[in-house]
Amino acid sequence: MHRLARAPASSANLGPGFDTLAVALGLFIEVELRERPQGLLVEAEGEGADLATGASHLAAQVACKVLGHDRLGLRIRSEIPVARGLGSSAALAVAAAAAAGVEEGAVGAFRWGAAIDGHPENAAASAFGGLVTAALVDDQPVARSLRLDPELSFVVVVPDLRLSTPAARDILPESVPYEDAVFNLGRMGLLVAGLADHRGLLATAGDDRLHQQARSVLLPEAPAILAGLRDAGALTSCWSGAGPSILAMSTRERAPALAESARQLMSSLELSGQVLEVPPGLRGVEVYDLD
Amino acid sequence: MHRLARAPASSANLGPGFDTLAVALGLFIEVELRERPQGLLVEAEGEGADLATGASHLAAQVACKVLGHDRLGLRIRSEIPVARGLGSSAALAVAAAAAAGVEEGAVGAFRWGAAIDGHPENAAASAFGGLVTAALVDDQPVARSLRLDPELSFVVVVPDLRLSTPAARDILPESVPYEDAVFNLGRMGLLVAGLADHRGLLATAGDDRLHQQARSVLLPEAPAILAGLRDAGALTSCWSGAGPSILAMSTRERAPALAESARQLMSSLELSGQVLEVPPGLRGVEVYDLD
Repeated sequence: MHRLARAPASSANLGPGFDTLAVALGLFIEVELRERPQGLLVEAEGEGADLATGASHLAAQVACKVLGHDRLGLRIRSEIPVARGLGSSAALAVAAAAAAGVEEGAVGAFRWGAAIDGHPENAAASAFGGLVTAALVDDQPVARSLRLDPELSFVVVVPDLRLSTPAARDILPESVPYEDAVFNLGRMGLLVAGLADHRGLLATAGDDRLHQQARSVLLPEAPAILAGLRDAGALTSCWSGAGPSILAMSTRERAPALAESARQLMSSLELSGQVLEVPPGLRGVEVYDLD
Repeated sequence: MHRLARAPASSANLGPGFDTLAVALGLFIEVELRERPQGLLVEAEGEGADLATGASHLAAQVACKVLGHDRLGLRIRSEIPVARGLGSSAALAVAAAAAAGVEEGAVGAFRWGAAIDGHPENAAASAFGGLVTAALVDDQPVARSLRLDPELSFVVVVPDLRLSTPAARDILPESVPYEDAVFNLGRMGLLVAGLADHRGLLATAGDDRLHQQARSVLLPEAPAILAGLRDAGALTSCWSGAGPSILAMSTRERAPALAESARQLMSSLELSGQVLEVPPGLRGVEVYDLD
């Protein structure tokens, strides 16, 4: 068996849609898998190549469990920055499960991604592509696709700072004012409608009262980046996952100019990092048989 | 000037989408307006005909303000039960504004409906038809349309009990557990996806943790009705607006059988009222010039 699986990165939450919405981004991770007579071999290139290798590598854990043995060689190549809120672990788990030939294809890969990563929305975006909504229903991950206007593209501000999702979760409160819970529902409705048809996408549709402000202590520049991107022509802006990346929605046509403005914004804030201009990842996980 | 405007009823909230989602129902209110040499005349037939007439009638208040004078005759004919959570006042305000020739047509009528009724989602459904999402943005009502699967239809259990929305609001808490706020976001995502394509509509997508349980003290039979409708084949079920009506989503094909089951359910619960089988109201407010 010799197979290659490729899965896109993702931005989850998308402002009001905390733990619910995610969009796949055209930044990819590839897992190439070969069965071997014996022994596990893991090689990694690109983003995350400095992380754990061998049996403790997330791709190895997933592939060995799916296959039921550890006689395999894995080569991982990633464009997805790690610990930046871009769903790298969900994408990796999805790609590894798919490369290992998980049953039910993308659906099976989604379940592995959700189980390993704990975030069904990131895993759903990596498995199915496009815009998704996901939740746990009776402890089982469930996802549905939502319409994403093909005119939309994305610009992502990726600070060099790494944030762990558990740390970003510990900062969240145990209860919220009723009106804030309702505020997010209202903005999420406007966001879902605006992502389906960008002509109706309001800047305020990306606003949130459940997590972004609390998390700004982890990235004090966040409010200035969110506002600066909108001033520079983003249709709307929000945190990407648990951060520190910040996502801007744009028309495809305006994305290059917006990316340039985002670079100037980072520079003016003296924030080190990179700006990525990425289209949506529309196809989800893809598997190629290389035998 | 002699004009007739017709607007559909609506169900708001739809379970998780508290103060956000609404769907227009094929139950209508008509406002016929004629300018007169002098004096205000208000006549009402059908549902709500027992309410205030004359200058204090909601249709008269809206029409007089839109026109800037009170030399008019109004005839209101309504199929929409009052104070049952079916958006009768929003529909009436939208129809009255449209009959009075408000500027910007349905958009202007929506603004009047939202201002008078205080619920932009009900007014949006009555003005634009179909499935809508709405919110106040900087105190201004904003609405967007969402896709509604043309296969969907509705069955509404309408108890004889009348509930006022302010009373149903007083019962809501001031804060909510963080996980409940997130629960509603997740279910709302699944609901919006399922209403766009009924084949993916999960029963749990209509679940809510922000308002339905608290309001059950006003209608103790509500949990049994919600569950009974699902057991009887509803795709999902939820409160309609602030209640007491309960809404069931169904395919068009199964709606008659579901309505029959709903009647048996009311009977077995010894709950007096009626069951309505209604398609969505797809067209929003319509105005006919009768001159």
